[in-house]
Amino acid sequence: MSATRFTYLGPEGTFTEAALRTLPEAATRELVPSVSVQAALDAVRNGEAAAALVPIENSVEGGITSTLDELVAGEPLMIYREVLLSIAFALLVRPGTKLSDIKTVTAHPAAQTQVRNWLKANLPDAVWESAASNADGARLVQEGRYDAAFAGEFAAATYGLEPLVSEIHDMENAQTRFVLVGRPARPSAPTGADKTSVVIWLGDDHPGALLELLQEFAVRGVNLMLIHSRPTGAGLGNYCFAVDAEGHIADRRVGEALMGLKRICPNVRFLGSYPRAGVEAAEVLPLRAGTSDQDFVAAFDWLARCQDGRA
Amino acid sequence: MSATRFTYLGPEGTFTEAALRTLPEAATRELVPSVSVQAALDAVRNGEAAAALVPIENSVEGGITSTLDELVAGEPLMIYREVLLSIAFALLVRPGTKLSDIKTVTAHPAAQTQVRNWLKANLPDAVWESAASNADGARLVQEGRYDAAFAGEFAAATYGLEPLVSEIHDMENAQTRFVLVGRPARPSAPTGADKTSVVIWLGDDHPGALLELLQEFAVRGVNLMLIHSRPTGAGLGNYCFAVDAEGHIADRRVGEALMGLKRICPNVRFLGSYPRAGVEAAEVLPLRAGTSDQDFVAAFDWLARCQDGRA
Amino acid sequence: MSATRFTYLGPEGTFTEAALRTLPEAATRELVPSVSVQAALDAVRNGEAAAALVPIENSVEGGITSTLDELVAGEPLMIYREVLLSIAFALLVRPGTKLSDIKTVTAHPAAQTQVRNWLKANLPDAVWESAASNADGARLVQEGRYDAAFAGEFAAATYGLEPLVSEIHDMENAQTRFVLVGRPARPSAPTGADKTSVVIWLGDDHPGALLELLQEFAVRGVNLMLIHSRPTGAGLGNYCFAVDAEGHIADRRVGEALMGLKRICPNVRFLGSYPRAGVEAAEVLPLRAGTSDQDFVAAFDWLARCQDGRA
Amino acid sequence: MSATRFTYLGPEGTFTEAALRTLPEAATRELVPSVSVQAALDAVRNGEAAAALVPIENSVEGGITSTLDELVAGEPLMIYREVLLSIAFALLVRPGTKLSDIKTVTAHPAAQTQVRNWLKANLPDAVWESAASNADGARLVQEGRYDAAFAGEFAAATYGLEPLVSEIHDMENAQTRFVLVGRPARPSAPTGADKTSVVIWLGDDHPGALLELLQEFAVRGVNLMLIHSRPTGAGLGNYCFAVDAEGHIADRRVGEALMGLKRICPNVRFLGSYPRAGVEAAEVLPLRAGTSDQDFVAAFDWLARCQDGRA
Repeated sequence: MSATRFTYLGPEGTFTEAALRTLPEAATRELVPSVSVQAALDAVRNGEAAAALVPIENSVEGGITSTLDELVAGEPLMIYREVLLSIAFALLVRPGTKLSDIKTVTAHPAAQTQVRNWLKANLPDAVWESAASNADGARLVQEGRYDAAFAGEFAAATYGLEPLVSEIHDMENAQTRFVLVGRPARPSAPTGADKTSVVIWLGDDHPGALLELLQEFAVRGVNLMLIHSRPTGAGLGNYCFAVDAEGHIADRRVGEALMGLKRICPNVRFLGSYPRAGVEAAEVLPLRAGTSDQDFVAAFDWLARCQDGRA
Repeated sequence: MSATRFTYLGPEGTFTEAALRTLPEAATRELVPSVSVQAALDAVRNGEAAAALVPIENSVEGGITSTLDELVAGEPLMIYREVLLSIAFALLVRPGTKLSDIKTVTAHPAAQTQVRNWLKANLPDAVWESAASNADGARLVQEGRYDAAFAGEFAAATYGLEPLVSEIHDMENAQTRFVLVGRPARPSAPTGADKTSVVIWLGDDHPGALLELLQEFAVRGVNLMLIHSRPTGAGLGNYCFAVDAEGHIADRRVGEALMGLKRICPNVRFLGSYPRAGVEAAEVLPLRAGTSDQDFVAAFDWLARCQDGRA
Repeated sequence: MSATRFTYLGPEGTFTEAALRTLPEAATRELVPSVSVQAALDAVRNGEAAAALVPIENSVEGGITSTLDELVAGEPLMIYREVLLSIAFALLVRPGTKLSDIKTVTAHPAAQTQVRNWLKANLPDAVWESAASNADGARLVQEGRYDAAFAGEFAAATYGLEPLVSEIHDMENAQTRFVLVGRPARPSAPTGADKTSVVIWLGDDHPGALLELLQEFAVRGVNLMLIHSRPTGAGLGNYCFAVDAEGHIADRRVGEALMGLKRICPNVRFLGSYPRAGVEAAEVLPLRAGTSDQDFVAAFDWLARCQDGRA
Repeated sequence: MSATRFTYLGPEGTFTEAALRTLPEAATRELVPSVSVQAALDAVRNGEAAAALVPIENSVEGGITSTLDELVAGEPLMIYREVLLSIAFALLVRPGTKLSDIKTVTAHPAAQTQVRNWLKANLPDAVWESAASNADGARLVQEGRYDAAFAGEFAAATYGLEPLVSEIHDMENAQTRFVLVGRPARPSAPTGADKTSVVIWLGDDHPGALLELLQEFAVRGVNLMLIHSRPTGAGLGNYCFAVDAEGHIADRRVGEALMGLKRICPNVRFLGSYPRAGVEAAEVLPLRAGTSDQDFVAAFDWLARCQDGRA
C-alpha cells in the first residue's frame, strides 16, 4: 500500500537507493525502484508511493533538470528531507577476477567524469561500454557481458559481485544531493538548521526583476544557497528560478520574504521547508541583526502601539 | 481649558496664525500665540493646549530645525494635520503713507530673501531694520518706529495698518508647510492621500546604514518625500533622519516598512500619519504593482496555505 | 584546412546544420559534422576548424549544459554570432509509406516533448524507439529498421526520405539558440543590437554575492537577458554563472560593469560580444538615462575638470 | 593683499578664529574677521581673501545652513581643509568679578544649549541676554553692559577679561567642524585619509532617486560620512543633497562614483577633496575588496585585453 511504500530512482543498487537507506523513516517502508525520476514522482502523485527519493543536484552536473522540471510543473509536490551522499565508486567484478583480467568496463556515462583518471592510470587499455545505470552495469557484469563495473560498493551484494578496488573518485568533494518528495502537507517543525525551496516566475518584460527577487530575500536577511533557472515553456528566454534559501517557512523573516515574492511575481510555488542535511543548528551562520522571530514580534507589537497612539 | 485651546507660533498676525485659521477644526477653538516653537510644543506637552501649529519646512530654509529638534527629542508628540501656505508679503503702512514717504522698512530677517529684489527695484534707498517676527515688525510700524513692514496681508487689520503693495515675493513657489502637533493618540483614518512621518536613528558604525534604511521603504514600494538629518547630540557626525513617506501607517506596505526599520535601527519614533495637504486621493501616484492592501492580504493567505500544506 | 572549415553538432541533417546554413559566412566554408559538442569545440581549440556551431539554449531544456560547461572550462573560446531556429518536426518516411503503415517511430529522446501530443492523436499505437540523434533516426528509417522518423524536414533529402507530415510541434514558440564559437579574437563592431556573454565566479562564503553581481550591471543600466548557474567542480553548492547582458563590450556602460565584476569576483571569463539574432537596433529598449557613451564621455570630461579645479 | 589674507567668521575671539589659528598655513597670513559667513565667502569670491574659514557642522545644530547654502549656490567655491574644535566655554568676567557678583550673563543664543545646566546649577538667578556672537558678548562685558560672558577662553585676552570658570560644556563631545574655503583649484594630493564633498541635485519626479544616488557610492565601496538636504529654491519638497564621502577624487573608486552621479543626476557640484581632520591614514577603515586603485587598474587592463581578444 502507498502508506508504507517509498520509491526511488532505480534500479536496485543505485546511489539513490543507498541514500534512501540512510533515512530513519525508510527503515520501516517497502522500498520500490522506479525507472525514471518522472516515474518515481508520478507514483507519488497518483498515490502508489508515499514518497520518492530522487537526485536534485550533484557537484558535476549541477541541478538535475529532470527533477527540477518535475517539481516546477504538474501537480504540486513538496520536499520533506534532503540527503547528501559522497560519490565514490568501487570497481565490481565477479569473484576471482583480477585487475589484469579486465578488458571491458561499464557504468552510466555520468560516472566517467569521476573514474577517467583512475582508468587511465590503472586500466589504460580497458574498453568503456556505457550502461543505462551503474546498477545495470553491475548486472551486465554478473551476466558475464563485461568484466567490471563502476558502481557504489553497496551494489556488490545485490549482483553477486565483489569490490576489487574501492573509493575511486577523481574529484574530491564529489557529492550528490537527493530529496525526499511527497504530496503537499504541513512541513515538519523548524530545527534551527533548515532550508526552504521555492520556484519563482518573473514577469516577462522587466529587466530588473531578478534583482528585485533577490532583494526581497536580502532586505529580510535571508541568505540564498542556490538558484537555478529553468525554462517556463513559454519560449526562448522565459525562465523561472528554483531557489533554496536558509531558514524555515515558519521563521518570520522567511515568511515575510515569501509573501514579498508572492506579491511582486506572477507566480511562486512553495516546495517545502526541511532540515539541512549535514548541518547542525549550532553551525548555522548567525542571523543578521534584527531578523530573529523575537525581533519580528517586537516590531509588530511596536507597530500596534503606534497605531493605537501608545508608542 | 486645554481641550478647547490651540496654540501657534506667534505673535498674532504671523503666517502661522493665518495657516491655523485655514483648518476647520480651528474654527471652534481658542487660538493662543506662543513665543517660540519650543513654547508652543511645551504647551501641548503639559496640557495647556490641545494642539500646536508650527512651521516645519519652507522652500527657502528647508526643514525648520527648531521644530524638527523638538519632535525628535523629549516627550513624544504626534502630527495630525499639515497645512501649506503660499508666502507672499504685503507692504504694510500706516493709513496715508505713500511709497515715496518710506525711509525705513522692517520684517523678520527670513523675509529678506523674498523681498530683496522688490526692495532694490522699488525702494532702493530704504533702510532695513530687523524685527523679531513679521507681526512684530507690523506692531513697530503701528507704534511709528518704522515706516513700513513686510508681513502677511492678513496682519494689517490686527495692527491698524493698510497694505500699500500686495503679493510681493521674489521667488515663485515660495511656500511654508506647517504641522498641527498634539499628544500621541490614534491617527485619523487613511484618506488615500496620506503621509507618514518618522524619525530614524542609525547604528553608529555602519557605513551602509542609510542605504539599508531606504531599501526598507523601497522594497515595499513606499515612496519617500523628504529626508532631513538632525544631530543626535552624541557628537559630530551622529545623525538621525526625519523622513516623510507616502501612505498611512494603516497601509500594509507602510506598516511592514516601519517594522523593518524598527528591527534594524536602534530607534524609530513614529510622528504620525495624516492627510497630505493639497493632494486628493485621485492625484496620488499609482502604487507599485504588488503593494496594495489586497496584495498583502492575498500573500498572507497564500503563506498560511503553504504552512498548512494546502498551497 | 582550418581557415575554411566550420564544424557543427552532427550528424548531417540536424537542426544545428540547418542553423549553420542560415549564416552568410558559412556559404563559402566547408561544413563538417562533429559527433558531440565537446568534439566540435575541441576541433576549434586545436585548429581543425575555424569555428563551430553548437546549440546553447532551447525553450524546452533551457541552457544546454554540455555547451555551457565547455565554454566555462578549458582553453578560452569566444562567441561571434548567434542563430535562432524555430523547431518544428516533419514525420519522415521511405517513399510510398502511408500513415496507416507506421508501426514504429524514432527520434532523439528530446524530440518527444514536442511530438508526444501529435503521436497520441495521430499514431496512438506506434512504438517509440530512441535514436542517438534525429538525423540518425532518419538513417535508421532509410535502412528499414523503423518505419518513420521525426526530424527536421531538411533531413529528408540527405537520407532519401520524404516528409509525410510537416510542422509538427506540440508547443508553440519552440526555438533553439545556437552560437558560433571560435578562438578568442577582437569582437565584431557594435551594431546597436548586441549581446555580451560572460561567466562569473562568486566568492564562496558570501551570501549576498549574487545580488552584488546583479547590482554591478543594474547601477550602469545594463539589462540582463539570461543567467544560468553551472557547478564549478569545487563541490556541491559551488556555482558560477553564465550571464547574457544587453549591449557590447565596446559600450562604456557594459565595459564599466564588466570591470566592476572583475574587481569584486574571483574570476570573470569574457565569452564575447555579438549581434542579437532577430533584433534590429531600432527595436532595442531605450537606454536608461545617463548610460549612453556620450553620457560617459561627458562625465569623464567633467571629472577631469574637477580634478584640475576647473569645474 | 588677497594672496596673503585669510578671513573667518568674526568678530575676533570667536571659536572660528581659534580654529583658524590651528592651521599651519594660517601662521603667515593676515587674518581678517568677516561679519557673516556670506561676507566671508564673498570676500573669497571677489578676491579680497585667499580663503575663508567658516563653520559647517556642529554637534548641536547639525549642518550650518548658512554655510551649506553658500557652497550650494552662487559662484563655485572649494573646500581645502577641515578643522575640528572641541567646544567648551569659559565664563569671562572683568578682573575682580566674583561668581556671587554676577546678575547678568550673555552669549550667542547657540551657546545656551551648552551652558544651560551649568547656569541652573551655579547661577540660577542670573538673567540671560543674547549677543550677536560670543565674542560680541565678551565685548559687552568689557564695556560693562553685562557682568559675564560665555565664550572661548582664548577670547579673554582680546577683551581684557579673565576666565572665572573654564571647561563649561553640558554635553560631552561637543565639537564644531570648520572648513577652509577658496576659489576652485586643483585639490591637494591624497593622504590616505581624505574626504570628498559634493552637492547633488536629484531629478524632480523620481521617488527612488535618493536610493540610486546612494547606490552609485555603495557599488564602488565608497562610504558616506554625511548627508544634508538643502532646498533648491524651486519650491517646497525640492532638495539637493550635500554629501561627504570617504576618499579623494583622485581615488579611482571615488572618481567613478562621481562620474556615475554626474550621469544620472541633473547636476553635481564638486566641493573638494581634502585631508580628514583628526584621522591618520592608518586609522581609516580598510577598503572593501576590489576597490583599490590597483584593482581598478587591473580591471581596466583586463577589459582592454578582452576587447582585443587577448583575455
